[in-house]
Amino acid sequence: MSKLSGFPEFLPAERNVELIVLDHLRTVFDLHGFASIETRAVETMDQLLRKGEIDKEVYVLRRLQAGEGDSDSGMGLHFDLTVPFARYVLENAGKLEFPFRRYQIQKVWRGERPQQGRFREFTQADIDIVAKDELPFHFDVEVAQVMAEALSGLPVPQLTLQVSNRKVLEGFYLGLGIAEPTAVMPIVDKLDKVPADKIAEQLQTDAGLTAEQAATCLALADVRTTDESFVEAVRALGVTHPLLDEGLEELRQVVIGAAGAKGVDIVADLRIARGLDYYTGTVFETRMAGYEHLGSICSGGRYDQLASDGKNTYPGVGISLGVSRLLVPLVADGLTADRSVPSTVLVALVDEESRAASVDVASALRARGIPAEVAASAQKFGKQIRYAERRGIPFVWFPANGDEPHKVRDIRVGDQADADPATWAPPAGDLKPRILRTPSKEQNT
Amino acid sequence: MSKLSGFPEFLPAERNVELIVLDHLRTVFDLHGFASIETRAVETMDQLLRKGEIDKEVYVLRRLQAGEGDSDSGMGLHFDLTVPFARYVLENAGKLEFPFRRYQIQKVWRGERPQQGRFREFTQADIDIVAKDELPFHFDVEVAQVMAEALSGLPVPQLTLQVSNRKVLEGFYLGLGIAEPTAVMPIVDKLDKVPADKIAEQLQTDAGLTAEQAATCLALADVRTTDESFVEAVRALGVTHPLLDEGLEELRQVVIGAAGAKGVDIVADLRIARGLDYYTGTVFETRMAGYEHLGSICSGGRYDQLASDGKNTYPGVGISLGVSRLLVPLVADGLTADRSVPSTVLVALVDEESRAASVDVASALRARGIPAEVAASAQKFGKQIRYAERRGIPFVWFPANGDEPHKVRDIRVGDQADADPATWAPPAGDLKPRILRTPSKEQNT
Repeated sequence: MSKLSGFPEFLPAERNVELIVLDHLRTVFDLHGFASIETRAVETMDQLLRKGEIDKEVYVLRRLQAGEGDSDSGMGLHFDLTVPFARYVLENAGKLEFPFRRYQIQKVWRGERPQQGRFREFTQADIDIVAKDELPFHFDVEVAQVMAEALSGLPVPQLTLQVSNRKVLEGFYLGLGIAEPTAVMPIVDKLDKVPADKIAEQLQTDAGLTAEQAATCLALADVRTTDESFVEAVRALGVTHPLLDEGLEELRQVVIGAAGAKGVDIVADLRIARGLDYYTGTVFETRMAGYEHLGSICSGGRYDQLASDGKNTYPGVGISLGVSRLLVPLVADGLTADRSVPSTVLVALVDEESRAASVDVASALRARGIPAEVAASAQKFGKQIRYAERRGIPFVWFPANGDEPHKVRDIRVGDQADADPATWAPPAGDLKPRILRTPSKEQNT
Repeated sequence: MSKLSGFPEFLPAERNVELIVLDHLRTVFDLHGFASIETRAVETMDQLLRKGEIDKEVYVLRRLQAGEGDSDSGMGLHFDLTVPFARYVLENAGKLEFPFRRYQIQKVWRGERPQQGRFREFTQADIDIVAKDELPFHFDVEVAQVMAEALSGLPVPQLTLQVSNRKVLEGFYLGLGIAEPTAVMPIVDKLDKVPADKIAEQLQTDAGLTAEQAATCLALADVRTTDESFVEAVRALGVTHPLLDEGLEELRQVVIGAAGAKGVDIVADLRIARGLDYYTGTVFETRMAGYEHLGSICSGGRYDQLASDGKNTYPGVGISLGVSRLLVPLVADGLTADRSVPSTVLVALVDEESRAASVDVASALRARGIPAEVAASAQKFGKQIRYAERRGIPFVWFPANGDEPHKVRDIRVGDQADADPATWAPPAGDLKPRILRTPSKEQNT
C-alpha cells in the first residue's frame, strides 16, 4: 500500500487547484486560437530514440500475455510532447492547415530510477506553432506573449521568463573569431551549476578559446536586462557580426512583445543558451521565486526543423510548461483549494421520507448552474452542517418544512436567510472552488 | 509512419467534438457534486492482477536503461479506472470524506493483440460513490440519474440505459429452488450472443437445472419494460423470495428515478446480469441505436466491496462510460465540429507594418472572451478569407484603414458591417466550436 515514488497524486482539494490551473491555461490558449490536440501515450521505440539525449529514461511496454521469452512491443511511453507532436504533424500533414498552432496538455513518463525522487509521471502543457518550410519570426513573439499571459494568471509566486537567442550567441562567438561556436554553448549553458572561473577554464581546454575570448564570452553571459537596453550592453563589448545583429533585433522584439503580464518579469538573459542542438533562434527558460532549485519550469524556443519528411521541413517555435513540476512542490507547501468537492450548496435532509423534496431543490439549483448535492442521510442539522464544513461546501440549504420557508445559510459566517430555489444564487466567487492561500504562500503576488 | 492500430488519434476538428463531450460530462458531474480525481497511469502488477479476469491484457513497463536481462519494473498500465480508484480510496482513506463521490476521466490501456482491431488506448469517464462500511441504496438511484443526465446531452444517437438487479435474479433463482444461483448468471448473461435454446441446454448441463427451471429462467430474462410494470411481469411468473422482493423494489426505484432524460430510454431489462462477480445489486448496461455491435458503451453497478483493508470495507456504486468506444466510431462515420481551431474571429492584416494594429484588435476581442487570431501574413484579403474558411473560423475582421472604419464579415453568409473592437460580439452560438451533423448522423435526436 506504500505510494509509488515519482508518481504524484493529488487529494480532491489539491486536484481542484490543478483543475483551476489547467482551465486557466486552456482558456488563454483557446483565446489565442491554439487548437487542442492529444496524441497517444505511446510511440514506437525508433521515434523515441531518434534524438539521443534522454533515451535512457524511456518506459518500454511489453504485453503481459506475450510471455517472458517474447520481445517488447516495440513501443514506449512518450517522455515529452515534442516527439509525438512532430510525428503527428508528419502523419497528418495533408490534413492540417499550416501555420498550425496547437496546445497539448498531457502526462509524460520518464523511466527514472525510483530512488532519485524525480517525477516518473508528470503533466506538461505545450504550445507550438509550426509551419511548412517557412515560419515568420513574428510567431516567436506571439508564443512568448501567449505563454506570458498564461503564466500570469497562475496561483504561483513571481515568475521570471528569461529570453535569449542562439543567433546572438552564435553571431557573437563568430564575431569573436571562434571557429566552432556550437562547442561553446553547452559549456556556457552550465553557468547555473558551475562557477564562472571553471567555465572559463573549460572554454579554453575543451573549446579551444583564448583566455581573452573566454572572458568576453563570460561578459556576454553576464548581460541581463528587463528592457531593450541589453542591445547597448552587448554592443559595448565591441563584437560585430551580421548574425549577431539579426539575433539582437529578434531578441529585442520578443522582450518588448512579451512584457506587461502581471506576475511575470521578462528578462533578456544571455546566460540562457539551452544546450539542446535543435534550437536555432529564440530560447526560453523560466524561474519561480523561492523555487529556484526546481530549475526552469517553462522552457522552449525556435527550432528550424521540428520535423521533416525529406520533401518538406516543418520549422516551429514553442514553449513547454511543467505543470506538475510547478504544482507538486507548491501543493506540498500548502497550496490548496477551499473545498474538496465542486458543490456550492449542500441541501439538507429533514427526514428520509422527504428526500424527493431535497432532490428537487438541488435540481432547481443545478438547472441554473449551481453545483449542489443532497445530504447523505437525515442526521441532525448540526451534523449535516459539519458534513458540509468538512468538504468546504460554503452553503447549506434547509428545505421548506411545514410553515418554515426555504432557508440558506452561509456556514462560513453563519448568516441565514429565506431563499427561493428558483432564484437564489451564491456570490459569483463562491460558484466554483477557489485557491486557498496558506501562510507559507504569502510571498505570492 | 503508419498509424498504430488500436491507438486512435483525432484531427483538430474531431478533437473539438471530444472536448465538447468531455466538457459536458464534467459540467454534469460537477453540478452533482462529484469530485474530480486523477490517478497515476500505472499500478503495481499485484494490484492489477488481483481480479483474474483480464490479467492477460496488461501492458507491463520496463525501464529501457534497466537492460535486457533485467526484470520488469513491477508496474503496468491500468486497464480500467476501478482498480486504481479502489487503491486510491484505501491509500487515502484517512484523508477522504465518506460517502465519497468522484468522477475520473482518463485514458486506460489494454495490451490486446494488434491484429484484433480493438482499442489498446481509450478514454473512460467513471462516476462512483463509495462509503465506509455502509452505502444507502438511494445512491444507486443517484448514480443512474447523474449518468442518464450526462448521456442525455451527448451528440450521439438514441441511447438505451438497461437496468437490472442481481438481487432480482438471485432471489428469483433461489425462489425457483436453484441451489447455486451464481452458476446461472454467467450463462444467462450470454443471451446476447448465444441463442435461447442453447442457453436452456447449458442451464441444464452446466448449472444442473431442470428443463422447467431453465424455461422459467429464460422467461425472466425476457422481461423488459420501460416503466415499473416489470414488477407485475415478474410476479406473474409465480416465483417468490424475500431477496426477489427487495430486488424488485430497488429496480423499481432506479427505473423511475432515472427516467425523463431526453435521448436516453430507461429500460428494466432482466436479461442484463453482468457476469462479473463483484456486482451485488443494481447493474447497468447501455446500447446506442445503430451501433448495437459495439456492445454496452456505459456499464456498471453496485458492488458491496469495492475495496477492503481488513478492518473496513468500502461498498460502492458506479458507472463507466466508454468515451472512445462511443466517439471513435461516430467520428469515423462523419461526426465532427464546425472548425478545427477555437478561434471565432480571424483579424486580417492590411500589411505587415500594421501587424500591431491587428494584434490590438485581437487583444480587445480576447479581453471580452472572444477567441481571435491574427492572420499569418498580409496576403490579399481574398486569401486571408480563404485562410479562415479552411479552418472554419466564422468571422473575419478588417481593421480600420485610413478613412475606412473597422468591419467584420460573417464569411459563411457574406454579411459585413462596421464594428467596434471594444463592443462587438458574435452570436453566443458562434463563440465556441460546435458539433457539425453530417447526413449520416441525422438519425440523432
